[in-house]
Amino acid sequence: MPQANGYAAHSPQSGLAPFRFERRELRPDDVAIAIDYCGVCHTDIHFVQDDWGMTQYPVVPGHEIIGRVTAVGSEVTGFRPGDTVGVGCMVDSCRECEPCSRGLEQYCLEGPVLTYNGQDRRDGGITYGGYSDSIMVNEHFVVRVPETLDPAAAAPLLCAGITTYSPLRHYGVKPGHKVGVIGMGGLGHMGIKFARALGAEVTVFTRSESKVGEAQRQGAHHVIVSTDAAQMRAAAGSFDYMLDTVPVQHDLNPYLELLRYDGTHILVGLVEPVEPPVHAGNLLFGRRVLAGSLIGGMPETQEVLDFCATHDIACDIEMLDIRNINEAYERVKRGEVKYRFVIDMATLKDTQ
Amino acid sequence: MPQANGYAAHSPQSGLAPFRFERRELRPDDVAIAIDYCGVCHTDIHFVQDDWGMTQYPVVPGHEIIGRVTAVGSEVTGFRPGDTVGVGCMVDSCRECEPCSRGLEQYCLEGPVLTYNGQDRRDGGITYGGYSDSIMVNEHFVVRVPETLDPAAAAPLLCAGITTYSPLRHYGVKPGHKVGVIGMGGLGHMGIKFARALGAEVTVFTRSESKVGEAQRQGAHHVIVSTDAAQMRAAAGSFDYMLDTVPVQHDLNPYLELLRYDGTHILVGLVEPVEPPVHAGNLLFGRRVLAGSLIGGMPETQEVLDFCATHDIACDIEMLDIRNINEAYERVKRGEVKYRFVIDMATLKDTQ
Repeated sequence: MPQANGYAAHSPQSGLAPFRFERRELRPDDVAIAIDYCGVCHTDIHFVQDDWGMTQYPVVPGHEIIGRVTAVGSEVTGFRPGDTVGVGCMVDSCRECEPCSRGLEQYCLEGPVLTYNGQDRRDGGITYGGYSDSIMVNEHFVVRVPETLDPAAAAPLLCAGITTYSPLRHYGVKPGHKVGVIGMGGLGHMGIKFARALGAEVTVFTRSESKVGEAQRQGAHHVIVSTDAAQMRAAAGSFDYMLDTVPVQHDLNPYLELLRYDGTHILVGLVEPVEPPVHAGNLLFGRRVLAGSLIGGMPETQEVLDFCATHDIACDIEMLDIRNINEAYERVKRGEVKYRFVIDMATLKDTQ
Repeated sequence: MPQANGYAAHSPQSGLAPFRFERRELRPDDVAIAIDYCGVCHTDIHFVQDDWGMTQYPVVPGHEIIGRVTAVGSEVTGFRPGDTVGVGCMVDSCRECEPCSRGLEQYCLEGPVLTYNGQDRRDGGITYGGYSDSIMVNEHFVVRVPETLDPAAAAPLLCAGITTYSPLRHYGVKPGHKVGVIGMGGLGHMGIKFARALGAEVTVFTRSESKVGEAQRQGAHHVIVSTDAAQMRAAAGSFDYMLDTVPVQHDLNPYLELLRYDGTHILVGLVEPVEPPVHAGNLLFGRRVLAGSLIGGMPETQEVLDFCATHDIACDIEMLDIRNINEAYERVKRGEVKYRFVIDMATLKDTQ
């Protein structure tokens, strides 16, 4: 079996440390990838800490993977050695159900196989993610990275990017629409760029007056300080869509009241009970909608990379030496990164 | 001013009693209606008891009104004396905003004027509803009752009917769709009939095994006893739409899990905080939607009456002598009516 080097956590308290493990043999439909960059997603931290009670240790996190093809299986038709490619949150799915056949593998009826901490559909093994030097992935779950994209800055597009791009496309955001973006972290700052590139009038909601300038720098046409009751009141009933990227519990009701009739509040960051509770009256009056959206399917994941190349959109990143990963997690938890850490996997060899 | 006889509540505890009051003079765009029938909606009880803290006493409830035109103002073009007509939950709106211009007066940006306990846009007076012998209504808010409909059974179409019909139409329910109907009261039993008439495969959810036969009699293709975990599990991921008519707090999560990906749970009965809270994961996984819907606009209110005439749909009603209204309210609160009380307004003269 091919050997791989990476970083893994072995218990909720252990933090991440160097880890040597086996990758599967190259399958006929596999692409072998030497990983150059891997983004750090808040989900990685949840899995490392076992916040959701489902982690199987050791866990090698990482689902924003950029690398170069080093070999391809005999049946692979779409990639060749040397290609710059990406792998996101999924590495397999049933490929036969209705969502899969529509390119919505994230909603696979049998459940997609997650890039890490997932269970391989063929050998039953637990998948290891992108905090490592190499990975084998079925070619259907590999995307092509356009040459004009900075490969490091492209890594977060595979989760933070597609997670915000997919619902904006699904709901048909276009010129004339007013879109609010709630939260300005890894997801939120991408949401601003996408909504603007799609032609919408973009308003960022922030709790802090101090972030107004930064929101404008990211492309927001307007900024509303959500703790300012007068600003919130003045915006009542004016938004077509809210893209809510906040990953912790928060009150949706003040934002629902800012939606027009038939407006839609889209949750992409929260995986908790919605508390405080939504008032049903805020949905009935105005026929408003509360929706969720999860990453994106493979065709749309390719599309977001191409869209970024066309519209010259990049994620704002801070490059990270993998030896500083545990410290970086603390900074992510404190919201002290603009806006996404990307691990420079070349630093991994210094740990061997 | 024309005199009217009706029933009113004068305080949260008083119950309803005979009440003599003045109606406005006929305006040029008004239709004067002699009321024959008025449905009893749970909302009437909420207003009488001041459950929502907004009742202005005395309150004359009733927003499912059927009657005959007795006179028309000089500018009225759509109605003539003798016509059988209906009036629902609204009697006015701004008529100029975007929702109004699209025939969605229920979402009027200035707020529609409610049939009772609303404020008249011209004279500022409080509106009195249909528990009375006559009413003056702007012709835009009057609908025509097709001759083939039983006028008494048509009364509840103006609230219970349109409330369930409108979202099924808005979301495009059609053959091939699987629709779940939660709750089998005044709204729910109409939801069954409409979803079936639109060609959907209809499943009723009930907590009680004893209601299975009745649900089938109403037209349900299937019945699921919601307290039976095995039945619920077997239905996971299978519904396109849930029409949730339950007017009290209940856990939506077990129902969200029964929706397909891209499925929609539509609240039409609840006007409370959604508790226990919806788990955001149930929206993200499957890109599901939680929506609300409020009655319907005037074109659609006419449409539902015409639809019922075409498809031979009627509300199941129990005729009520208005002198028994307080007792009837107790039965409504206990869920002991199949499925809607309709006041025979001829009984009002016996109270004078």
